[in-house]
Amino acid sequence: MRVDILSIFPEMFAPLDQSIVGKAQEKGILELYTHDFREQAKNKQRHVDDMPYGGGQGMLLMPQPIFDTMDLIPQNEEKPARVILLDPAGKKFDQKMAEELAEEEQLIFICGHYEGYDERIKQLVTDEVSLGDFVLTGGEVAATVMIDAVVRLLPGVLGKAASHEDDSFSSGLLEYPQYTRPQEYRGMKVPEVLMSGHHENIRKWRLEESLKKTLARRPDLLEQYEMNEEEEKILQELSEKAQDMVK
Amino acid sequence: MRVDILSIFPEMFAPLDQSIVGKAQEKGILELYTHDFREQAKNKQRHVDDMPYGGGQGMLLMPQPIFDTMDLIPQNEEKPARVILLDPAGKKFDQKMAEELAEEEQLIFICGHYEGYDERIKQLVTDEVSLGDFVLTGGEVAATVMIDAVVRLLPGVLGKAASHEDDSFSSGLLEYPQYTRPQEYRGMKVPEVLMSGHHENIRKWRLEESLKKTLARRPDLLEQYEMNEEEEKILQELSEKAQDMVK
Repeated sequence: MRVDILSIFPEMFAPLDQSIVGKAQEKGILELYTHDFREQAKNKQRHVDDMPYGGGQGMLLMPQPIFDTMDLIPQNEEKPARVILLDPAGKKFDQKMAEELAEEEQLIFICGHYEGYDERIKQLVTDEVSLGDFVLTGGEVAATVMIDAVVRLLPGVLGKAASHEDDSFSSGLLEYPQYTRPQEYRGMKVPEVLMSGHHENIRKWRLEESLKKTLARRPDLLEQYEMNEEEEKILQELSEKAQDMVK
Repeated sequence: MRVDILSIFPEMFAPLDQSIVGKAQEKGILELYTHDFREQAKNKQRHVDDMPYGGGQGMLLMPQPIFDTMDLIPQNEEKPARVILLDPAGKKFDQKMAEELAEEEQLIFICGHYEGYDERIKQLVTDEVSLGDFVLTGGEVAATVMIDAVVRLLPGVLGKAASHEDDSFSSGLLEYPQYTRPQEYRGMKVPEVLMSGHHENIRKWRLEESLKKTLARRPDLLEQYEMNEEEEKILQELSEKAQDMVK
């Protein structure tokens, strides 16, 4: 996959050279290019922003440096890139969108900064995306999160030891609690069932814990989840226990 | 504000030395400390992860390096820090949480990596937080996003020119389209009203565009929004126009 990023802060993408995404670059699975669009600014001072028409606070990104930078990015004409603009009014990013973007050959991210950007920049954009209902100083850290979530799904990026098939959201349930050594740490013990070596009991305990946690914290996930008979029975028992507590 | 980050990838926080958050550090508004908890690992190989009890894929963060690192972080005993663990099962991060965290004196972020972490680590944690319904390679990029959103709200971080009072979500409506120079770029023109100099018309146009955009993209925000008479009238007109189109 090729990823191009338009930003006046190319140093902000240093995290993508680290850890798992960094290794994806080393392996050649990810080709990452950052483009400082200030270099394309046609004015003497290399300004990339200007005041809004009609008045108002803050500065807006001008169209010219962005459009001219886009012209320089090679694209496969038969399969043009998805061009993503981070915007609070965009479609909310989720695992489904990450999976969809992981199928693409090329992604281009336009990272705004300052108060906003000239509306005409949206002519270049295929997807306006929001990371969530919060406001950031710029699109850079949001683009980094999206790239991280997408790249880890590319074939060959995660080894067998860290497969993404067990992820929360992939199974539709939240993950059960996990424990590693030592058996007791600062007075806190690992649940005995996990050390029993009894695979069927461990499987049941984990499923029950997953269901409990999802019911308590994200009942919306359960509504969309297709339960099998065993899972229905566990939930039924949980609900009866809860009723007993109320009595 | 003091922010401490526990992570085995301290280089991943380089973005926080840039741009607006970097300036907050220069101004002394933000004191940022990263703690590589691998340095506290008691085993010879400095491993911070181990296999899960009960079997399963992937490795889990061990409690010892995290607990021992926490012991080294100074905290105000009368007002202990909020300790945040990034977890897909956590409470969803939003602007309200950013505003709440901006009131704190100290935040501590524990960044997991690998498949997960030993459940006992949660004993240290005051807030489990999720950035959204997607899975990342680690908590580092998510913590960066949260810190960015919180720090920009601290007094003195944003200048007058980039106030956060006009933000999407702060007003309850999405922002109207904005334009800067030139008046025409690659055949695309700035709407005439914005160049009219007629402040009242500009104000009305912007309000109408904000309402239109919010209605089209985030009707959920409108449901929570307390409308004044003018806004109700504009929405009424929009709805009548839409009905005319259907006829």
